[in-house]
Amino acid sequence: MTFKICTIGELIVDFLAKGQNQRFDQTGEFIGPFPSGAPAVFADQVAKLGFSVIFFSCVGKDQFGKMCVNRLKKDGVIIDGITFHRKANTGSAFVSYKSNTESDFIFNIPNSACGLLSFNHIDENLLKDCNHLHVMGSSLYSFRAIDAMRKAIDIIKNKGGTISFDPNLRKEMFEIQEMEQSFDYIMEYTDIFLLSTNEVSYFAHNTGESEQQTMQALLKKGIKHIVVKKGVNGANYYGRDEQNKFTMMNIDGLRIHSVDPTGAGDCFDATFVSLMLAGYPVRIALKYANASGALAVSKKGAMEGTSTLIELEKVLSRSTNNI
Amino acid sequence: MTFKICTIGELIVDFLAKGQNQRFDQTGEFIGPFPSGAPAVFADQVAKLGFSVIFFSCVGKDQFGKMCVNRLKKDGVIIDGITFHRKANTGSAFVSYKSNTESDFIFNIPNSACGLLSFNHIDENLLKDCNHLHVMGSSLYSFRAIDAMRKAIDIIKNKGGTISFDPNLRKEMFEIQEMEQSFDYIMEYTDIFLLSTNEVSYFAHNTGESEQQTMQALLKKGIKHIVVKKGVNGANYYGRDEQNKFTMMNIDGLRIHSVDPTGAGDCFDATFVSLMLAGYPVRIALKYANASGALAVSKKGAMEGTSTLIELEKVLSRSTNNI
Repeated sequence: MTFKICTIGELIVDFLAKGQNQRFDQTGEFIGPFPSGAPAVFADQVAKLGFSVIFFSCVGKDQFGKMCVNRLKKDGVIIDGITFHRKANTGSAFVSYKSNTESDFIFNIPNSACGLLSFNHIDENLLKDCNHLHVMGSSLYSFRAIDAMRKAIDIIKNKGGTISFDPNLRKEMFEIQEMEQSFDYIMEYTDIFLLSTNEVSYFAHNTGESEQQTMQALLKKGIKHIVVKKGVNGANYYGRDEQNKFTMMNIDGLRIHSVDPTGAGDCFDATFVSLMLAGYPVRIALKYANASGALAVSKKGAMEGTSTLIELEKVLSRSTNNI
Repeated sequence: MTFKICTIGELIVDFLAKGQNQRFDQTGEFIGPFPSGAPAVFADQVAKLGFSVIFFSCVGKDQFGKMCVNRLKKDGVIIDGITFHRKANTGSAFVSYKSNTESDFIFNIPNSACGLLSFNHIDENLLKDCNHLHVMGSSLYSFRAIDAMRKAIDIIKNKGGTISFDPNLRKEMFEIQEMEQSFDYIMEYTDIFLLSTNEVSYFAHNTGESEQQTMQALLKKGIKHIVVKKGVNGANYYGRDEQNKFTMMNIDGLRIHSVDPTGAGDCFDATFVSLMLAGYPVRIALKYANASGALAVSKKGAMEGTSTLIELEKVLSRSTNNI
């Protein structure tokens, strides 16, 4: 089955604090720029697997933007949807790690070039052979960006395409009210829902309900596949079997030395969505996605841990959880 | 003579490339955040000398902004004119050194918090005992900022105060047309004009004219004191003597190991302007300003090399150019 994926949102550079618990209000050492942005990492991972993906974003006319675009191009992402904007700089994020899984961020996104991404940047011609859109919650940083996303959703849905959604909630972004308000809208169109284990309660209907209850309610609303990502603990999948009954499966985590958690969830998403669209059985897609997330954390830099199919197969063949 | 200086403009954090000629489109190491921004360094240096100075700016509600404001407060700058803006991040600059005097920058200023500084932020009450305004050309990054600056110029001039101006031209900012257009306006009100040697030709009336010719033309237009800063080569002063005749003096540079040129011109400005306002003879103000610039380059970070009067006196007493 041939397919082409589209994704939209922030393309930024990351600067990573060298020390653990390094403070942002004290002078310290940072490593960067690293190309980053959740949908950008997603797109890069899809391209690395050899699948077709187009990415819409804006960067500034500066060296950071040039670096990001060149990197995506080199890895095979279709960059025709990326605009070099005169009026703002390439977005950025400063990251400081508190532990292997927890980080602090200072984001400069809504006022950066990618914050200027708008309805008019979504060129229908570039979407004409796309049949899937992946939406990152972190990309819904303004009414302008939400408008652009809605346009893409409409185009893709109108021709029978599918939507995947990862809320990708970050505490630093909770002040952007538009973001939360747009979640309901996007959930209505979502076919594949990928979230992190710490986001489950956010989507619960009643306080105290179990993960399974929350996920069954979402499946009832029409979402077809749900994956709860648990990092080193693997993932849970919720969907329906051939008899249309609720089904669940889980997969163990892979033991890989984690040096940088940023980007792992985006790589997981990209691999799961790509392989599902390519017709792989759910369990296989899940295993590869799990491996993709594991490899992502083994490299410093959000986009540095994207993998080819061969690299994923190598990791899986070494692991005890053989396919 | 008691006086109080006001300055207005960018308050940002700098990240300094560790390597010389380090590229912005490759991953490398940076040191930061360092509190920075030309008028911020100016204000800090005035306060360090023990004089009264109020600074108007905006920072984001983030750790970078907090760090900048705390630093200025600690050094004695009056921070009542600084607003923590909800709608944007603290501005930033990435700096890479090509040599001891040349640098490349990526600025994020017009779209940052300090880019939102506007007319309404200039509180007349806070200016009521100010009798001098220092204007940095780099702070004229938008119509909004120019408007704020004009308001302050009007207030200060209407009560007989004086204005100093440093064009502080940077190639990265030449795309901001408003900036250049506002220069003529500000020059009309300027009493003390401080510029760098490589900016002299920008203010020449005819191509090929000498520095002296250019400066005499500016003195004829009504500017009272002009200093051409030459870095390690000292500075030239142009003004009028007691008989109202054009006079010139020059001062040799001081030999100090340079580790970071950023901020040296701002420290020079602050010391020259402060001491002139305090009634020091021109030659003495010039010597101290020269020492202030020299000490500034000896420390990494734009604001890290600001000095007290005692520190300046120490440097001068060690130098061969005794006062």
